[in-house]
Amino acid sequence: MRESIKEPENSVGVVTPQTARFAEPLVLRGGTVLRDYELVYETYGELNADRSNAVLVCHALNASHHVAGYYADAPDNVGWWDNMIGPGKPLDTRRFFVIGVNNIGGCHGSTGPLSVNSDTGRTWGGDFPVITVEDWVDAQARLADQLGISQFAAVMGGSLGAMQALAWSIRYPQRLRHSIVIACAPNLSAQNIAFNEVARQAIITDPDFNDGHYLAKGTAPKRGLRVARMVGHITYLSDDEMANKFGRQLKHDKLNYNFDTEFQIESYLRHQGNKFADHFDANTYLRITKVLDYFDPALEHGGDLTKALKKVASSVLVISFATDWRFSPERSREIVHALLDNRVRVTYAEIDAPHGHDAFLLDDPRYHRLVAAYFERVHREIES
Amino acid sequence: MRESIKEPENSVGVVTPQTARFAEPLVLRGGTVLRDYELVYETYGELNADRSNAVLVCHALNASHHVAGYYADAPDNVGWWDNMIGPGKPLDTRRFFVIGVNNIGGCHGSTGPLSVNSDTGRTWGGDFPVITVEDWVDAQARLADQLGISQFAAVMGGSLGAMQALAWSIRYPQRLRHSIVIACAPNLSAQNIAFNEVARQAIITDPDFNDGHYLAKGTAPKRGLRVARMVGHITYLSDDEMANKFGRQLKHDKLNYNFDTEFQIESYLRHQGNKFADHFDANTYLRITKVLDYFDPALEHGGDLTKALKKVASSVLVISFATDWRFSPERSREIVHALLDNRVRVTYAEIDAPHGHDAFLLDDPRYHRLVAAYFERVHREIES
Repeated sequence: MRESIKEPENSVGVVTPQTARFAEPLVLRGGTVLRDYELVYETYGELNADRSNAVLVCHALNASHHVAGYYADAPDNVGWWDNMIGPGKPLDTRRFFVIGVNNIGGCHGSTGPLSVNSDTGRTWGGDFPVITVEDWVDAQARLADQLGISQFAAVMGGSLGAMQALAWSIRYPQRLRHSIVIACAPNLSAQNIAFNEVARQAIITDPDFNDGHYLAKGTAPKRGLRVARMVGHITYLSDDEMANKFGRQLKHDKLNYNFDTEFQIESYLRHQGNKFADHFDANTYLRITKVLDYFDPALEHGGDLTKALKKVASSVLVISFATDWRFSPERSREIVHALLDNRVRVTYAEIDAPHGHDAFLLDDPRYHRLVAAYFERVHREIES
Repeated sequence: MRESIKEPENSVGVVTPQTARFAEPLVLRGGTVLRDYELVYETYGELNADRSNAVLVCHALNASHHVAGYYADAPDNVGWWDNMIGPGKPLDTRRFFVIGVNNIGGCHGSTGPLSVNSDTGRTWGGDFPVITVEDWVDAQARLADQLGISQFAAVMGGSLGAMQALAWSIRYPQRLRHSIVIACAPNLSAQNIAFNEVARQAIITDPDFNDGHYLAKGTAPKRGLRVARMVGHITYLSDDEMANKFGRQLKHDKLNYNFDTEFQIESYLRHQGNKFADHFDANTYLRITKVLDYFDPALEHGGDLTKALKKVASSVLVISFATDWRFSPERSREIVHALLDNRVRVTYAEIDAPHGHDAFLLDDPRYHRLVAAYFERVHREIES
């Protein structure tokens, strides 16, 4: 997904990641026990006296704990949701204490395939276990414990981040007042899984993948990761947005009838693929696609989403985008209906943005005004 | 796309491919001159006395000249449009003389990357030129000359095959009475090109690709071709059809939380990818995706499709499928509107089939009845 554009005005300013260490084992849904682990996180704003103004922001596929602000030594490295979070922004850091956390299995500092397995003394690599949204949420809950936060004002995310926000309201219903679920789905469709599987097969069949132990072998499956990212990118943008941005614009002034890039869209995709393959870890990417595939809270309730959401005690804001064909508005409405069946206080908005799934990262004024108004309500609740 | 199901009743029966040789050079749109070439083709039914009942059937991405019937030594190898063509079928071989032809650049016998370049005495491989719909149509026109057919009753195709049918009516307007354009688009969208580019990059970056000279090196870029086919397959089916056929059905009786196949859709895609990679030539696949990308009859008319279709003299039947998100009905309507602007006699139907782009190969009764009725009209015209 796209980088935010730096907006130095209203920025939270220079931020510094912190590391939390957990010695208590974490039992993963797949059966593996992580004996100990670390989570890298950032915070913006101040925790108030009664510790009631904390907002957890959960990241999606390829993002990290670096949600807002920038680094002193890298002023261009602006947080991925900087347009949403800061003083005077929809999630206003003058009122809220915001936490961004890199999830387990990630490649931005938290325990993951790049970390040393304390049982063996060697880098996890391809041996790092498969993880799930529920595992992430459990680890995040322990971070909240460590920070002394017994209840979040809100847990918030877009896409896979929204799945975490939803899982929070199922798994720890008393530990959040609001769940903000943007561009989400109650599970992946067959088509969603299919795209993930293409991405995985591109990586796994890259001869440089070496069963995930590419670091130990001194290789990196960049070809596969590049193709995986290219196919992912197609699903983040709407057909119309691609048509508007690129259409059939030529790369050169005429067609050359060869396998160099002929069209701008080819050039854009190759660039996105190359950039991603240069900095992201393939083992992490593989695992995060699996996290998406496995998310399905209704599964253990015989496919009944209403039953799955029975324990939800938070209020929920659900936002979808009309042109999102990855997680279409229909999928958000499934969540809304199941929440309403359970008499949950739910607010639903479908934003007519042209950008497709990526819209959740962009600053459509209607979208941002809605989130701002919602947080105004959350703020009043806390203050009252 | 899918294989047809064999229907021994109403089959054209045992068929035998033939080879036509052309000594006159063919100047390709990309500038290369093919000094000589061969086309492999099949025919079904009988050419009538005034040679007015010939129908040319053009193939799409991965098909061939083997359109109907089966081979004596391979009775399970049924033509790809056997449900459409045969005695008593929508394109009735008791009335029409039907020709299927493998296009230049193909890997089923016609001159292509697997052929020997007569200029060098070596296999073309990665040196085979990039080709276009127009090149294909020019070669097909010479085949018609050789068969003594000055005017086709109809030229017909689905998807890329439909682009050829449309190009025929632009390029050789007097040489066909009817153009049958099914599941088509007047050009690829940015998203369509993007999917093709992912497929190409998967192949080209496979270390076994060797710049297209994999045969000479004794390798084959099967990993890349497999991923390319997997991504293609996703675009052939509608989201709903995938949901109906596979949904989130598990491969085993429980989730295993590893990288083996967890869901049926993964298993299906891997199977389709493997099967395709075992029998299709990667250089051909690459070139056919480029044929699709380049097709854009409006380009040399400043993007004006109405101008591009000005010379059309045939009647045109345009058929689209409601759930086709690769070439959506909107794209077919662009063609229809441009034809109507030119006062062409055009018939348009949008079939509410659930199968997505693949619907053109399946035997939805409404679709087949429509084609049958249209050919009834063509037959009456010829007879009158």
